[in-house]
Amino acid sequence: MLHTFVALVQDKPGVLTRVASLFRRLNINIVSLTVGESERADVSRMTIVCEAPDHAAHRIRASLYKLEITVDVDEVGRADAVIRELCLVKIAAGPKTRSQIFELANVFRARVVDLAPESVMLEMTGAASKIEGLIQVLTESGYTILEVSRTGRMAMRRGHHTSRVLKALGTPDPDHHDEKLFHEKPHADEILPNEFAEGEG
Amino acid sequence: MLHTFVALVQDKPGVLTRVASLFRRLNINIVSLTVGESERADVSRMTIVCEAPDHAAHRIRASLYKLEITVDVDEVGRADAVIRELCLVKIAAGPKTRSQIFELANVFRARVVDLAPESVMLEMTGAASKIEGLIQVLTESGYTILEVSRTGRMAMRRGHHTSRVLKALGTPDPDHHDEKLFHEKPHADEILPNEFAEGEG
Repeated sequence: MLHTFVALVQDKPGVLTRVASLFRRLNINIVSLTVGESERADVSRMTIVCEAPDHAAHRIRASLYKLEITVDVDEVGRADAVIRELCLVKIAAGPKTRSQIFELANVFRARVVDLAPESVMLEMTGAASKIEGLIQVLTESGYTILEVSRTGRMAMRRGHHTSRVLKALGTPDPDHHDEKLFHEKPHADEILPNEFAEGEG
Repeated sequence: MLHTFVALVQDKPGVLTRVASLFRRLNINIVSLTVGESERADVSRMTIVCEAPDHAAHRIRASLYKLEITVDVDEVGRADAVIRELCLVKIAAGPKTRSQIFELANVFRARVVDLAPESVMLEMTGAASKIEGLIQVLTESGYTILEVSRTGRMAMRRGHHTSRVLKALGTPDPDHHDEKLFHEKPHADEILPNEFAEGEG
């Protein structure tokens, strides 16, 4: 069974090693993992999808939580979260076959991000099944897929969910206006990653 | 300086641990990492962005290549690749403030993926600077950002690039139909020196 964990971890060297070794030790295979910036400059957000028996979920969550670098962990199910993935697909296509690919892209709401004399690159976001749908249609239509790159699933709870994740970060909960409970709400300049100013990308 | 590596690795348990420990050993900080499926069922594709001095790029590439789980490694510069990232942002917004967020979303070509009585979730793809632009505008407009989740950068070379990555995978090149040429994993010293280093910002 697939489990999706969202972990907020300190942005320190070696964090990835710690998390990866944990799963290795538990003998659980990671299906996909993404690490990126979160709403706080010093905290990274990981979405980890792993294949594990149902009863193991608690143990994984507890083990993740026990790592000293972990700020919080949440397990999200398919029902209550938006789960999206980004995919880049490069297809061999010349001027004659290009327009058919554009039509398919339109149906799947994929965007053309690069066009070369002999290839087209599409970008698509969506659930894993939608991405696999596009790849299958392209393959079955006889196109040669040159490269596929997928980010792996990223999850976020639907609605104004004041999970423990948010509480740990001090996000104000609109139902409880006692701001003192959430005294650590970050300032704007704390939220914005510094690298924006450095013009790196 | 930021370096972006695309590594094709065998889809086996412990792969992530191997890669993460390698960077830990080299004492190089991973800025972002994504692992997902590639065009081959038994091969995963990683995009690793790391902060390292310019002269270290060769060493990182060679070290990655030396891992037995590695099928191939490519270093891509900003000039010759499409570099995209997926971001989900949840913003506190009620019925009155929602429409202003929709307008901003439109400008940034972000999509509304969830709507709740007190929050809106946007999905956006693009370069890191574009994503940071949206977050900055939202923050400066006075909105409370509840959650941000980013996949980290994913890179793919522009055009019909028959990189060694593709050759190693045996992808047919329309110009050279001799499949025999594409069966062997090249030697480590064959892929060095890095001929693409000049194209980098």
